[in-house]
Amino acid sequence: MKVAFVMGSDSDLEIVKPGIEVVKSFGVDVEVRVISAHRTPQIAEEFAKNARQNGVGVIVAAAGMAAHLAGVLAAYTTLPVVALPIAAKRLDGLDALLAMVQMPPGIPVATVGIDGAKNAGLLALQILGVSDKEVAAKMLQFKEDMAKQVIAKDEKVSAQF
Amino acid sequence: MKVAFVMGSDSDLEIVKPGIEVVKSFGVDVEVRVISAHRTPQIAEEFAKNARQNGVGVIVAAAGMAAHLAGVLAAYTTLPVVALPIAAKRLDGLDALLAMVQMPPGIPVATVGIDGAKNAGLLALQILGVSDKEVAAKMLQFKEDMAKQVIAKDEKVSAQF
Amino acid sequence: MKVAFVMGSDSDLEIVKPGIEVVKSFGVDVEVRVISAHRTPQIAEEFAKNARQNGVGVIVAAAGMAAHLAGVLAAYTTLPVVALPIAAKRLDGLDALLAMVQMPPGIPVATVGIDGAKNAGLLALQILGVSDKEVAAKMLQFKEDMAKQVIAKDEKVSAQF
Amino acid sequence: MKVAFVMGSDSDLEIVKPGIEVVKSFGVDVEVRVISAHRTPQIAEEFAKNARQNGVGVIVAAAGMAAHLAGVLAAYTTLPVVALPIAAKRLDGLDALLAMVQMPPGIPVATVGIDGAKNAGLLALQILGVSDKEVAAKMLQFKEDMAKQVIAKDEKVSAQF
Amino acid sequence: MKVAFVMGSDSDLEIVKPGIEVVKSFGVDVEVRVISAHRTPQIAEEFAKNARQNGVGVIVAAAGMAAHLAGVLAAYTTLPVVALPIAAKRLDGLDALLAMVQMPPGIPVATVGIDGAKNAGLLALQILGVSDKEVAAKMLQFKEDMAKQVIAKDEKVSAQF
Amino acid sequence: MKVAFVMGSDSDLEIVKPGIEVVKSFGVDVEVRVISAHRTPQIAEEFAKNARQNGVGVIVAAAGMAAHLAGVLAAYTTLPVVALPIAAKRLDGLDALLAMVQMPPGIPVATVGIDGAKNAGLLALQILGVSDKEVAAKMLQFKEDMAKQVIAKDEKVSAQF
Amino acid sequence: MKVAFVMGSDSDLEIVKPGIEVVKSFGVDVEVRVISAHRTPQIAEEFAKNARQNGVGVIVAAAGMAAHLAGVLAAYTTLPVVALPIAAKRLDGLDALLAMVQMPPGIPVATVGIDGAKNAGLLALQILGVSDKEVAAKMLQFKEDMAKQVIAKDEKVSAQF
Amino acid sequence: MKVAFVMGSDSDLEIVKPGIEVVKSFGVDVEVRVISAHRTPQIAEEFAKNARQNGVGVIVAAAGMAAHLAGVLAAYTTLPVVALPIAAKRLDGLDALLAMVQMPPGIPVATVGIDGAKNAGLLALQILGVSDKEVAAKMLQFKEDMAKQVIAKDEKVSAQF
Repeated sequence: MKVAFVMGSDSDLEIVKPGIEVVKSFGVDVEVRVISAHRTPQIAEEFAKNARQNGVGVIVAAAGMAAHLAGVLAAYTTLPVVALPIAAKRLDGLDALLAMVQMPPGIPVATVGIDGAKNAGLLALQILGVSDKEVAAKMLQFKEDMAKQVIAKDEKVSAQF
Repeated sequence: MKVAFVMGSDSDLEIVKPGIEVVKSFGVDVEVRVISAHRTPQIAEEFAKNARQNGVGVIVAAAGMAAHLAGVLAAYTTLPVVALPIAAKRLDGLDALLAMVQMPPGIPVATVGIDGAKNAGLLALQILGVSDKEVAAKMLQFKEDMAKQVIAKDEKVSAQF
Repeated sequence: MKVAFVMGSDSDLEIVKPGIEVVKSFGVDVEVRVISAHRTPQIAEEFAKNARQNGVGVIVAAAGMAAHLAGVLAAYTTLPVVALPIAAKRLDGLDALLAMVQMPPGIPVATVGIDGAKNAGLLALQILGVSDKEVAAKMLQFKEDMAKQVIAKDEKVSAQF
Repeated sequence: MKVAFVMGSDSDLEIVKPGIEVVKSFGVDVEVRVISAHRTPQIAEEFAKNARQNGVGVIVAAAGMAAHLAGVLAAYTTLPVVALPIAAKRLDGLDALLAMVQMPPGIPVATVGIDGAKNAGLLALQILGVSDKEVAAKMLQFKEDMAKQVIAKDEKVSAQF
Repeated sequence: MKVAFVMGSDSDLEIVKPGIEVVKSFGVDVEVRVISAHRTPQIAEEFAKNARQNGVGVIVAAAGMAAHLAGVLAAYTTLPVVALPIAAKRLDGLDALLAMVQMPPGIPVATVGIDGAKNAGLLALQILGVSDKEVAAKMLQFKEDMAKQVIAKDEKVSAQF
Repeated sequence: MKVAFVMGSDSDLEIVKPGIEVVKSFGVDVEVRVISAHRTPQIAEEFAKNARQNGVGVIVAAAGMAAHLAGVLAAYTTLPVVALPIAAKRLDGLDALLAMVQMPPGIPVATVGIDGAKNAGLLALQILGVSDKEVAAKMLQFKEDMAKQVIAKDEKVSAQF
Repeated sequence: MKVAFVMGSDSDLEIVKPGIEVVKSFGVDVEVRVISAHRTPQIAEEFAKNARQNGVGVIVAAAGMAAHLAGVLAAYTTLPVVALPIAAKRLDGLDALLAMVQMPPGIPVATVGIDGAKNAGLLALQILGVSDKEVAAKMLQFKEDMAKQVIAKDEKVSAQF
Repeated sequence: MKVAFVMGSDSDLEIVKPGIEVVKSFGVDVEVRVISAHRTPQIAEEFAKNARQNGVGVIVAAAGMAAHLAGVLAAYTTLPVVALPIAAKRLDGLDALLAMVQMPPGIPVATVGIDGAKNAGLLALQILGVSDKEVAAKMLQFKEDMAKQVIAKDEKVSAQF
């Protein structure tokens, strides 16, 4: 199963990339799309309706401002949708965060932090890892590597004082 | 032309009613619907696509929390959509306000204040009144009546001190 | 009918321009004014009172901070007033947004997103398009063009991964 | 010179009363009015223009939501305007506070806390007291009385533990 | 695989229950725990470390205020953790929302809306449904049932006007 | 009578200057001080206690962050204190605004907008102008000059379209 | 050494009491005072200046709105001041929190959560416990008791499902 | 006794340094560590458990975003933990502030202002100074030096006008 990254605007690609990359680094396939909930709503509908049969396991939806993309996709699929709020020029992403996370009862999305693309990718991997033991094993390794990096920095910093 | 009031949940009906009533008090027809952007997205799509040919002049979309309804309808119509943010139990409607007003470039909605149903109805009437002289004349009368009420209250209050 | 753009300060002109331009691109006439609700209040009053008879169909009012311009104009006209909150140096436009959108009952304004001039212009066009079939037809075309642009970007981005 | 209390709606009267009463308790005359910046804008204009010659020394303007009243009055007078933001049903008065305090350069208002009517009255008295020695002397007494009350409470509370 | 609901305080149980119930209504087992990130941190650690081998597929962590529970559990497991922010007496849950959703890079949690227990349960089911076809099929049915309910309400409400 | 400008830190001087200058441009004397409510509290106390007898008519207190300066001065004087919240590096001055404007009952301050030094100066002048006819006359002229500037900009901008 | 609880208003006593009680339950003496930073500033000054020599080890300062009390006390003592923000009728204590925690460089206060009196008391005890081994030992016991309570609740709740 | 500075990421070191330096300038020893609540949770646990016996008197915990570090350390120690919220790229540190200060009852932390490292160090020193007379005496001197600096600036600024 692959992870689909959908963004509302191609201008968000640079923000989204660390998420795409972390998924690929786990050896999991990605599909990357630019689909607007408001400008190409029917493509959004078709994408979401067909995602599961197209081999998608998790959808990551990245959008800014009144970010409806995650909710619109979630309306048309039973797959989990990871909502990635993107900070636009104003309000620091608080608008996108609230427009994503506060979904009404019945249609949840899995929201990560503002501009938190890497975490969106990691969450998608954790979701796949519920049943995919290989992904889960790699996640364990990933966490151990992170710990080692922190420990190395700890040694370096604590030695300065 | 009529004004369509669409709400995401029938629990919002009491909040929305003052808007419906002010439109009816101008002798303008209304259509009132419960359509969920997330639970009945295809009905939302069809409603919006056909609204103009069904005699709708303005759509008022009322929703709370991550309020996507106005934006989803606006995606499928060229009619103006008045966005009415509804306060849910938490955050006093700030989530709905931002989720509505901060629409990305290309697909605007006309947002009124939180729980401001009467103003949503009046705004719909002002929009119709751009070309409908009868509605515009009634609006002028409505404003004069409001002024008279304020003046009456002013007399009553100022006399107390 | 034309669309009037009124801004509280000429320093907002660059932010407002994309709205003016989109209206002109539809072949609709514009009138552009600098009128301050606080520094030239009587000009604001006269402008609003005479707008309809001067051929204005919709007023777009752009202002920042404690943005009173849209409300002050709306007090003196029955035309719809599109409120365009402008972000000043502090608070990211949240002050202007709340000072515009939260109008008390009786005098609505149609608020768009912070610095959302293009959407303000498009909303004005949608309002004209309620009765003006030519504008409505151009709006349909505008939306189709937007969709095509998104599709083109989708192809370009999805091919990279 | 008297202090004028202007409120946008008679529903604010109960909130405003402690301000009226503190002014009267200083032996200063009050004028109390219900004037709406949006529903009776011309009365607002006339009131503000004539306030000084009518013996008003300070205007207290109380309003909620997109509270434009203080700014609209300030536009038409050179008297100081004390802005009293009133909390409406939603947003706890933050909208009124920002819509009042964030006035653009050139037209200040003197904003007090949300629902802070007593402080609005006291501030008006302090302003009169700049030149009115009797008011200033009473203010000194008022502050000494407050101190005594706090001291009495201190004794009562500290004795409990 | 079962869904574990962990709450920081038993006082949150009533808020969390709709999530527990929706999971059970799908025929999926639940484990319900009261574990505090701050008062029983070692139990939190052990719970999270052993969750996967104890048959847990998804953890739902509910907490209020400076809600650390989801992050603390996520630190010790590779399973996806659904973060459910609970509104405490002050700040309407905004503190819990930010304390959960804004996780630093490397350790994501899947945040749902404030007090959104039902959505937390549904998200957990969607995550299980990535590989569990029975759960996925039931989710499809669940969504169709929701749509029917909205349609029934639509008919009832639209008939009133 | 003169206007005293007190700032909590000399780093605020550049922000405060437009207020000092507008007061001087009216021919009113100024006193400019750096006094910290927290680092030189006794100087603050002495300054405030003696301000009236030293010829001060209005105190402008500028401070950032947990801005206590205006309140601390107001505690020791019966003169009106204009509170000027200064934006520090974080939170855009919202902390200073709330720490100033939300004074408890009994001790008001007259708060102006964030970084609004010019308005602080103008408000001080309006306060002096309650009894000082010369200042009031100059304020009227100042407002007329502002109006002329807006009219000139209006002509320039409107001619471009 | 004792812990002094100072509150700006006796109306805060009920909120503050859990803090007083937890300190007393550790066998540590308390002094409880009502002192207003604005209404009895000189008493505040004297209290803070003499606190250390009067046997106070930590001061807990509770105040609402533009809560200056903690900062004003901190200005006059070298003892640690625990700042306890109290929620007033509006803004849920966010004003008091920011007015306390955002102290400028040089004069820190130790801020706890809104209405968090019990934590204020516990923090005061932890501070005393840095050097007082008996208090530290009791704190360890207190934490173990809390853990036991959570464990008991865990057993009770988990048995229900 | 020494002061331990723990930061969640070495990227925070530059922000934290002024706190480290002020502690060292008092002749008090520091220990500086990089420990992540989420990436190296067991090191966090061990550090906190052993801090007191390792000679630590106060822990300063610096973290950004959903800043759990202070709370996680506080869970495992009876020492006072000073929480230093760090502003990340978005939200200006409001997320870290709330994620730290709003600790649930039982486990307090002593929160200082956003990026307020110097104050964090000074607060740690004040805490040590409760029983350490030398530190307390130096703090008194530190405050007198600050006052002198303000007085010098006051003289320089006031002379300019």
